[in-house]
Amino acid sequence: MTPDDQQRFLEFALQTVVAAGAAILPHFREIISVQDKRNYMGYDPVTVADHAAEDAIRAAIKRRFPDHGIHGEEHGREAGGSPLTWVIDPIDGTKSFILGQLHWATLLSLHDGDAPVVGVAHQPFIGETFLGTQSGVAQWRRGDERRNLRTRACARIEDAIVATTDPRQFASAAEQAALHAVTHDARLLRYGGDCYCYTQLAMGFIDVVIECGLQPYDVQALIPIVTAAGGVISNWSGGRCDQGGPVLACGDPALHQQLLRRLKR
Amino acid sequence: MTPDDQQRFLEFALQTVVAAGAAILPHFREIISVQDKRNYMGYDPVTVADHAAEDAIRAAIKRRFPDHGIHGEEHGREAGGSPLTWVIDPIDGTKSFILGQLHWATLLSLHDGDAPVVGVAHQPFIGETFLGTQSGVAQWRRGDERRNLRTRACARIEDAIVATTDPRQFASAAEQAALHAVTHDARLLRYGGDCYCYTQLAMGFIDVVIECGLQPYDVQALIPIVTAAGGVISNWSGGRCDQGGPVLACGDPALHQQLLRRLKR
Repeated sequence: MTPDDQQRFLEFALQTVVAAGAAILPHFREIISVQDKRNYMGYDPVTVADHAAEDAIRAAIKRRFPDHGIHGEEHGREAGGSPLTWVIDPIDGTKSFILGQLHWATLLSLHDGDAPVVGVAHQPFIGETFLGTQSGVAQWRRGDERRNLRTRACARIEDAIVATTDPRQFASAAEQAALHAVTHDARLLRYGGDCYCYTQLAMGFIDVVIECGLQPYDVQALIPIVTAAGGVISNWSGGRCDQGGPVLACGDPALHQQLLRRLKR
Repeated sequence: MTPDDQQRFLEFALQTVVAAGAAILPHFREIISVQDKRNYMGYDPVTVADHAAEDAIRAAIKRRFPDHGIHGEEHGREAGGSPLTWVIDPIDGTKSFILGQLHWATLLSLHDGDAPVVGVAHQPFIGETFLGTQSGVAQWRRGDERRNLRTRACARIEDAIVATTDPRQFASAAEQAALHAVTHDARLLRYGGDCYCYTQLAMGFIDVVIECGLQPYDVQALIPIVTAAGGVISNWSGGRCDQGGPVLACGDPALHQQLLRRLKR
């Protein structure tokens, strides 16, 4: 896809997440109904806001790009005539949202059949947006403020700040071993954060994010943001992570190579 | 202290944390490249912001209340002629601040020699403030928005959302056992949050906060906020926690009593 096409889709994505934010905000820190989506697998709240935001995004896509596919967390997949598919996480960080905390955002990305080519993360209560394209645009915006995103150099894990949302995501012994291998000698390991782990890696304040059990919509929007900012994001074998699963993101490509070798052992 | 006096000190505290926020914001998400000479000289944005904020608060107190005592995280204690002491945590949640994340705030409280009578938590990047007084005022403010803070009813731990900043704070076997006793059958246990655990308990979105190893300035401002919102905050024996140490806060007093019994075993 040409950079011009990416720019056009990016502009649409930016408008659309703002509309989704308008659907979400009336429900943030309000008493809202919380359903339990999964009965036995732990707590996974779905909120009115989640549904309203995904509905708003789906409606906007269907108006503007009726032949595109859509894959959203709440309402699943709809194939389109085009290989282009919009991937939606209406609220990434639902638990943070339910607690009235701040580390959540609407994630929207466009997958061209090969890889995500445009990604946007928007937190409407803060009014800040992180964006990235495959052609190399990576930016943070808030109001009239703009900043190009750039990961920082950090080649040694002993100097690295590592973030992961919750160590209990690493449920199996192999996952626990992987977490330990990557983090045991890090300068700092920080819990909490959800999508704000990846945005802050792209901004140059976190060096490593390790997670597992992700869904495609949890990670796809973050891939162009991290990559265009100079970082590397993959699964734990160094392969693609756009379909979710285990994820390793590093601001410094040299550190990514080192940590992949640790994960191989 | 009369409610009128508390209101007068509250107004001063609100103005003062806004001034501290102005000192902090230029350093939030400030990029320090390895090439930056200041970095080689030991420059550290969070330390600079911490000092600048505490200096601004101390200067304001000395101008307005020269006989009051001051106890701040960065510059220690200064006794005053009055039993009234201002207690300052210029940036609570420094790790979150360093990562460019959002769960941090300036905490300022006034202790009357017996208990904290006024408490304020202010996040300048968000522009939101949580406040409480011993006389029962508990409010959230952002711009022209106002909301009275009120904890929610939640009498059973099986229905409770529990928050703690980091399970690794619970270093000893006894502390780990306490964490397990309180949280093992909770509906949800969430990591991360710092002062945003307590503010969101006061707002009615978190039911229990358990932490340990706190300093007086980590917790004092939060005591009037939680208490005036209808919650209970104490040490793990049910006694006062204004001098820090282990802390248990509950939105529902009945749940607090139950959890204290668990901690006694």
